[in-house]
Order: sequence, then structure tokens, then C-alpha cells
Amino acid sequence: MNVNEQLNEYAQMTEEALGKYIPSADCPQKSVIEAARYSLNAGGKRLRPALVMEFCRICGGKPETALPVACAIEMMHTFSLIHDDLPCMDDDDLRRGKPSCHKAFGEATALLAGDALAIMPFEIIAKAGAEKIIEPVYALKIIQLLAQLAGFVGMIGGQTLDLEYENKQPSVSEILEMYRMKTGALLEFCCKAGCIAANWGVQEKLIPAGNFGQRLGLAFQITDDILDITADEKTLGKPIGSDKENGKYTYVSAVGIDKAREYVKQLTAEAKEFLTEFSDTEFLNELADILAERSN
Amino acid sequence: MNVNEQLNEYAQMTEEALGKYIPSADCPQKSVIEAARYSLNAGGKRLRPALVMEFCRICGGKPETALPVACAIEMMHTFSLIHDDLPCMDDDDLRRGKPSCHKAFGEATALLAGDALAIMPFEIIAKAGAEKIIEPVYALKIIQLLAQLAGFVGMIGGQTLDLEYENKQPSVSEILEMYRMKTGALLEFCCKAGCIAANWGVQEKLIPAGNFGQRLGLAFQITDDILDITADEKTLGKPIGSDKENGKYTYVSAVGIDKAREYVKQLTAEAKEFLTEFSDTEFLNELADILAERSN
Repeated sequence: MNVNEQLNEYAQMTEEALGKYIPSADCPQKSVIEAARYSLNAGGKRLRPALVMEFCRICGGKPETALPVACAIEMMHTFSLIHDDLPCMDDDDLRRGKPSCHKAFGEATALLAGDALAIMPFEIIAKAGAEKIIEPVYALKIIQLLAQLAGFVGMIGGQTLDLEYENKQPSVSEILEMYRMKTGALLEFCCKAGCIAANWGVQEKLIPAGNFGQRLGLAFQITDDILDITADEKTLGKPIGSDKENGKYTYVSAVGIDKAREYVKQLTAEAKEFLTEFSDTEFLNELADILAERSN
Repeated sequence: MNVNEQLNEYAQMTEEALGKYIPSADCPQKSVIEAARYSLNAGGKRLRPALVMEFCRICGGKPETALPVACAIEMMHTFSLIHDDLPCMDDDDLRRGKPSCHKAFGEATALLAGDALAIMPFEIIAKAGAEKIIEPVYALKIIQLLAQLAGFVGMIGGQTLDLEYENKQPSVSEILEMYRMKTGALLEFCCKAGCIAANWGVQEKLIPAGNFGQRLGLAFQITDDILDITADEKTLGKPIGSDKENGKYTYVSAVGIDKAREYVKQLTAEAKEFLTEFSDTEFLNELADILAERSN
């Protein structure tokens, strides 16, 4: 099975399971449920679920064991996209070629749909722990890790810096720290949580897994910056040039496209180096390459 | 010790612990941390933490055991207030006599501070479970319960209904169902979670605890509606008449103030009836009376 086929299989597993977790919209508060479902179903690469399940697999677990965590992280990611697109944040009308959540459902409903998608991940992981699909103490560890890496010192901290730096010229190291939190933290979570779900929560293995995720995340974010300048709108599914329009000074603005491309290559090589601590890593190695060369 | 002294003691325990959970603002993303701290410190009765710790106590546990859960629910409640006040929601400039979070820190920072306060509760409860302050399987049960009662079918579902019903005339049963979700759900959580933290998670005790919380929540919300009409702005700490101005049709609008006052009395009596399943309930009985007679 090649990397794209495997990625598709993980995506299908995730989408099927996500559909079951979201409650039926057959209730008076259906608008918020439909808004959440709309954004969850808006496509995307399902990269995060694939990382969770693949790390579980290479640590000797079944991918299915980590499926609740995979769904949880996809919800958390979707929550961040919905809130990021809101008028008081990036004010984006399009996401993956479709109207963003608040354009389709209104601002208040989008706010609440995001809120609910930030909360439900913990219900899903706790349920998997309570039902012993994941060992209870490991489920607690995964919940702690998710909340840390999504919260004040993780993703939300990074989004705060993103705001702070608007219409400013942060230094290269400030930009990279912001990316580490904003994008790297959740990818670090995926890789570590996959290991923990396989009951492989030993510190010495979590460190290379987390480092792989962090490098992949940085490369991913810088590639996003590059595509914001070089892609065409149709392939990208959202307007290009939005960083500049939003007063965002990116890594690419700081060092130029050529150096940024070089750094993506370097980060990808570093990421792959951390995989040598594991075996059976063909999928992850190829995935890192594909992400560095993507056009949307 | 009378009920107000005990309430103050629980509040002090909560405020001291809350201060330790929020990370230091000595970091580049300090704005979001300061915004969260501002709203957490804005006072309030700390009713929810008191319910959690007192139910833990009457179930034979130490109040301290439930302190992490008490802090978690206060954060979740504060998150809901911050987002509720945002311009796309109720657009309130004042909260407890001070500028609301987005008035003090800007809309984007308030949004993110709310997001972080919706996530951190799970970190705190998971940590208490991992450190065996609360039994791991019970910590997972509390996390599941919090996520359910805060999410699509709980508080956020109720806030969605609140929006849906704006400028409409919902029926009395629709209003009460909205209150049950919007306000009752988190109070139900507090009472049940206190029992569970004391390792008293047996279903037959959770039901009266949850019912007490639900009745108290309904009485609390209807009292809020009454105060929105009858209180003076200084005592209430926010503008009066805001429900009408926001196009909100409340229980009081539907049945009138006299019948609403009568119903608060009935709900309070019903709540107290559920306490007969427990012993040593003097504090809870008095608390229910105080809440029904409050002026802010």
C-alpha cells in the first residue's frame, strides 16, 4: 500500500468515526451541531489522525485503538480553524474552497460550534479510557498532554502571538517560536499520543516522537506561508496573499522564498532523522516528503 | 460556622488554587493569560466550586480532594461568561461591575482566553487523576461528565437555544428546557462530580445529587431573570433590562414576576427534598434558601 492509499484509509476511518461522535441534529439546538458537522466534513488531509494512528501502529498497537484520539485531535484542529476564521481573528470568508463556518452559519453559531469542538475531544478520550480501549492512566496522560499542547502554552498561546505580531516585524526566532506553538504543538501531540495509546508511554520514546511532530509542524507551517504567495487560489481553496493582507509577517517575509524552501528541506530531513528511533517507518518517511512538496 | 462563612472559605480555597493553575504571565503570550486571570478574578459567588466541595464532603471525602474539580468548573463557567459577553453573542460591556473581558483586552484576546479556559479544566482533572488525588477511573468519569454537560447537549446547546429564541416567543417548556441546558447542566455537574470525587460514584446517589443541581440551576436562572427587571444596576453589577434590550423572552416575560417568584420557591423546595437522600446537609439547605432570596 502506498502512502496516499494509507492516508486515505486513515481518513476514511476517521470520517466514519467522527460522524458517529457528533450527536444527531434532530434536536432544537440543531444549528450548532450542523455547523460543527459542516466544518468537520469540509475535507482536509486528516493529517493529524493519520499521525496518531500510525504512531500507535509502529509502537505495536492497533491503529483502531488510537482512533478515538485521532477523532479528538481532528475536532480540536477544526475548532481552531473555525475560531481563527472569525471576523475578530483572521476574518477569512473561505476555508478549503467553501464558505467558512461563520459565513455559512453566522458568527454566534460558529463561535459556539468551535467551543463545543474544543470540549468534545476530552469526552471521547475519557470514554475510551473508561471503556479500557486505552488504559485508564494512559488516557489521563493523553488528556493532560492535549490540554497542555492546545492551551495557554501551546496552540492558543501561539495564536495569541500571531495576533501580537500583526503589523509588526517579529524576529526570525520569534516567528519560529510562534509556529512551534501554533502549529507544532498539536502535531507533537499527535505523535506522542499515538505512542501512549499503544501503552508505549516511556519518556525516551516520546521525545523523538514529539520532535518528529514539531519539525513536521514547522515545515508544514512554512510551506503554508510559501503557498500563500506561490499557489493559485483554486488549488489552495482559499485566497492567496492573505498573510500580507492581514498584516502578517511570516518566516517567508523574513528570509525570502528560497531560504524558506531550503529550511523546509532541512526540517524534513531532521524530522526523518528522529524516526530512526523507531522501526517500520516507511509511511512516516514518505509522508514527511509529501508534505514538504505539497501544492495545497 | 454559618453558610456565608463556609461559602467564603470555599471561595478562598478556590481562588488560591486558581491562581496557581494559571501559568505565569511572564511570557510573550502574556495578553491571553492576563485576560483569563482578569475574568477569573472578577469575583462572583464561587457557587459552583462550593457545590463541588460540599458534595464531596457530605459523601465522606475531604473538600480538598475535590478542589481541582472545583477550579475546573469555575474556569469552565468563566469561559462561558467571556464568550457570552462577546459582541456576536450578548454584546455586554459590563460583568460584575467591571468592563467585560473583550472591553478590557479586545475581542480576539477575549475569544482566545475563553478558549483556553474551556480546555484547561480537563488538564486539571486529568492531573488530579494521574496523581491519584482522585481515583483514575473516577477522574475519567468526571471528565466525561463535564464534557457532556458543557457541550452540544448541555451548556453550549443551551446557549444555542438562547440565540435561536432571540426575538421569538418560545413556549414556557422551551424556555425551561433552555435553562436546564444553559444553567442547570453545569450545576448538575458540580453536585454529581463532588460525589464522584469522594469515590461515591454509585448511580443511586448521583441521581438525587444531579436533580438537586438541576432544580437549583433553574431557580438560579429564573432569579437572574427577575433581578434583570427588579434590581438596581449598582447592586447587580451590570445594566438592568438587558434581557428585553437583547430581544430575550424569559420565563418572567412568559408568566410574570409573581408566578416566577412562586416557581423559584417551588424549585427550591424540590431541590431541598432531594437532599433528604444525604445526611449533614445543613449548608446545602441554607445555600438553596440564600440563592432564592439573593439581590445580585
